[in-house]
Amino acid sequence: MRARTLTLGVTAPRGFRAGSARAWIKPGSQRDDVALVVSDRPAVAAGVFTTNRVQAAPITWSRSVVEAQGRVCAVLLNSGNANACTGAAGDAAARRSAAVVAELLECDNDQVLVASTGVIGVPFPVERLLGALPRLACVVGATAASARRAADAILTTDTRRKQAAVRVRAGAREYTIGGMAKGAGMIHPDMATLLAVVTTDAPLRRAQARKLLRAAVDDTFNTLTVDGDTSTNDCVFLLANGAAGGSIASGSRAEVLISGALRQVCAQLAEAVAADGEGAHKLLIVHVAGAHTARDARTVARTIAASNLVKTAVHGGDPNWGRVLAAAGRAGVRLDPQALDLRIGGHLVAQNGAAHPAGERGAARHLRGKRVEMTLRIGAGPGEGTALGSDLSADYVRINAHYRS
Amino acid sequence: MRARTLTLGVTAPRGFRAGSARAWIKPGSQRDDVALVVSDRPAVAAGVFTTNRVQAAPITWSRSVVEAQGRVCAVLLNSGNANACTGAAGDAAARRSAAVVAELLECDNDQVLVASTGVIGVPFPVERLLGALPRLACVVGATAASARRAADAILTTDTRRKQAAVRVRAGAREYTIGGMAKGAGMIHPDMATLLAVVTTDAPLRRAQARKLLRAAVDDTFNTLTVDGDTSTNDCVFLLANGAAGGSIASGSRAEVLISGALRQVCAQLAEAVAADGEGAHKLLIVHVAGAHTARDARTVARTIAASNLVKTAVHGGDPNWGRVLAAAGRAGVRLDPQALDLRIGGHLVAQNGAAHPAGERGAARHLRGKRVEMTLRIGAGPGEGTALGSDLSADYVRINAHYRS
Repeated sequence: MRARTLTLGVTAPRGFRAGSARAWIKPGSQRDDVALVVSDRPAVAAGVFTTNRVQAAPITWSRSVVEAQGRVCAVLLNSGNANACTGAAGDAAARRSAAVVAELLECDNDQVLVASTGVIGVPFPVERLLGALPRLACVVGATAASARRAADAILTTDTRRKQAAVRVRAGAREYTIGGMAKGAGMIHPDMATLLAVVTTDAPLRRAQARKLLRAAVDDTFNTLTVDGDTSTNDCVFLLANGAAGGSIASGSRAEVLISGALRQVCAQLAEAVAADGEGAHKLLIVHVAGAHTARDARTVARTIAASNLVKTAVHGGDPNWGRVLAAAGRAGVRLDPQALDLRIGGHLVAQNGAAHPAGERGAARHLRGKRVEMTLRIGAGPGEGTALGSDLSADYVRINAHYRS
Repeated sequence: MRARTLTLGVTAPRGFRAGSARAWIKPGSQRDDVALVVSDRPAVAAGVFTTNRVQAAPITWSRSVVEAQGRVCAVLLNSGNANACTGAAGDAAARRSAAVVAELLECDNDQVLVASTGVIGVPFPVERLLGALPRLACVVGATAASARRAADAILTTDTRRKQAAVRVRAGAREYTIGGMAKGAGMIHPDMATLLAVVTTDAPLRRAQARKLLRAAVDDTFNTLTVDGDTSTNDCVFLLANGAAGGSIASGSRAEVLISGALRQVCAQLAEAVAADGEGAHKLLIVHVAGAHTARDARTVARTIAASNLVKTAVHGGDPNWGRVLAAAGRAGVRLDPQALDLRIGGHLVAQNGAAHPAGERGAARHLRGKRVEMTLRIGAGPGEGTALGSDLSADYVRINAHYRS
């Protein structure tokens, strides 16, 4: 009955294939830079897209695909060029890429999603991409190795592949969710593009897929973000092809199980993205409690997790709780400075807005680990929220990390 | 008639003295860490304070002093400890410091402003500070050297002293404005505390001083800030002691001249702060034009100037205009992505939201200088605004600066 975590990716669910090829999107590239995820039968698709006002051509295309009534056969992704700020030529490139994939897979043009990541404002080398597609369409496979190759091809400055998969049993049937992602340079999607593709063989309906994806992204990928801070290319896709059979009634136990599994896949991918921030050595998890609303709590948590001063203190292993309180204070949320309690790794280091020295030693010990958790209580309200981040290591860090010592 | 720039600081106007002393606020400190600015006659005072909800004890004290009807005899400043998140003991420390200075100068307690910068959340070593005050009160002098010593004592991670002074003639009288500041670690006041003291011998009235300071700060120090992003300790004080005599009628030519001089002093200090960001090698000035409102323009300018991706590109000398457009796109301001024109050092690098390659070479040349200017036109509106920032150099930068190459 319990969810089972698998060391697999987008090909874990039935009826999905994946693969990669080298298109030399960046001339001289030494690795595959195009990935394709194919559903053997048209899949229900949902998407969450960047809120940036400057949106890349593939975002415009894929949003129209998701918003149309149709189903989706494939997702084409490339690294090396974001196809953003590329004008009408960029739009045409996205459209043509989808059309060529559709031709190769014998589906409709508007059944192909596209996503790009890389440099902004450089003309998109669409001919090079198109040249790689016939081979790419041939090599897609349902194996774990195929999924790994696709997951590798979308990376940019990431240092590690990001995959996740979870299987749940609902009655007589097993449903699987798989996913891959590429990370944001410095966590903040501002810093680079976040792309993720999640696949499932569960028979979700369109509204259901949209609802479940939105909820999962809100609690996971969106906790990586400071409000409105998104790149031109961020997107997360969910493809549900129903290959596992059955049906999932709204509000059923099966839906709850699948929703939980989807959230788990997204959470694993989001944590992997956070832990792989450029130069990051530690995962930072900030919980905020006692806010008036969950929204307030999340705003404060994000402000703390995004603070360069907090991140450098975490890097330096310094339980510099004053920086955490100062970040909370500028989050734009009503709070009582005299009622702030902060725990680092469970150790109380600030109480009622002032030092609680007894906890510092334990907090310093916790800060030496790879996974740092902080909980800030800002009042007596019911609102709770979480944000994911990382430490910050750099020359600039050397100045800040030991500022207090 | 023209304003004359002087290489002097807070003692440039008549009737002000300054000095520094060593209080070992941080044990083992090798330099003076307390500064005092004294007005020989009670001066009209105005202040601009941090908007952070968590405010340091000296902010609370000084705000009450400025808001009271009284005049001010002195400003006491220290580096090494921010006296923030220090509870009731911190408030008492600020109060006692002011009282001891008042006793030494024979004025009232509420005629003394205090300001602190340094680590947050560490109990304030008030006894050490008090121990240094008698000597400090003796050494204050009206020389340029005294002003320099005061300007040095307030620095933290700054690498350079920050002073400015401007003299204007209005009719038969000369009025002088002098100032000193300490910088924010990484420009963003989020990153460290911004303190500034501006002195003048002009006979400003209270409402006038407040109006002129607010206007000057808005166009200068506040362009260093992303909305609401302020430290617990930021403050800018203006002391006007009237020692130059005469009177300044509201709306008079003299007021306009003094207002301009005040703005010039604040602008010089703000640029010095920007250029001295931690690890900064270049001053970055971002102009935005064509917005619906000045507020919108400034919001976009700040978002660009605060973007780590833009800052790393500036550091790397890369005219990566796509990052500038992407930053503009996430500023939360309505704009037409197809109507964005960007000039770097006067060279058009993006037109109508897409590349204008002819300008890249000139832009790259401009980016090699120490002062980088960008102008982004976002539409046909009347709103214009500016933000000041710096490049970003660090290990983390090495990854980002050459991402495109």
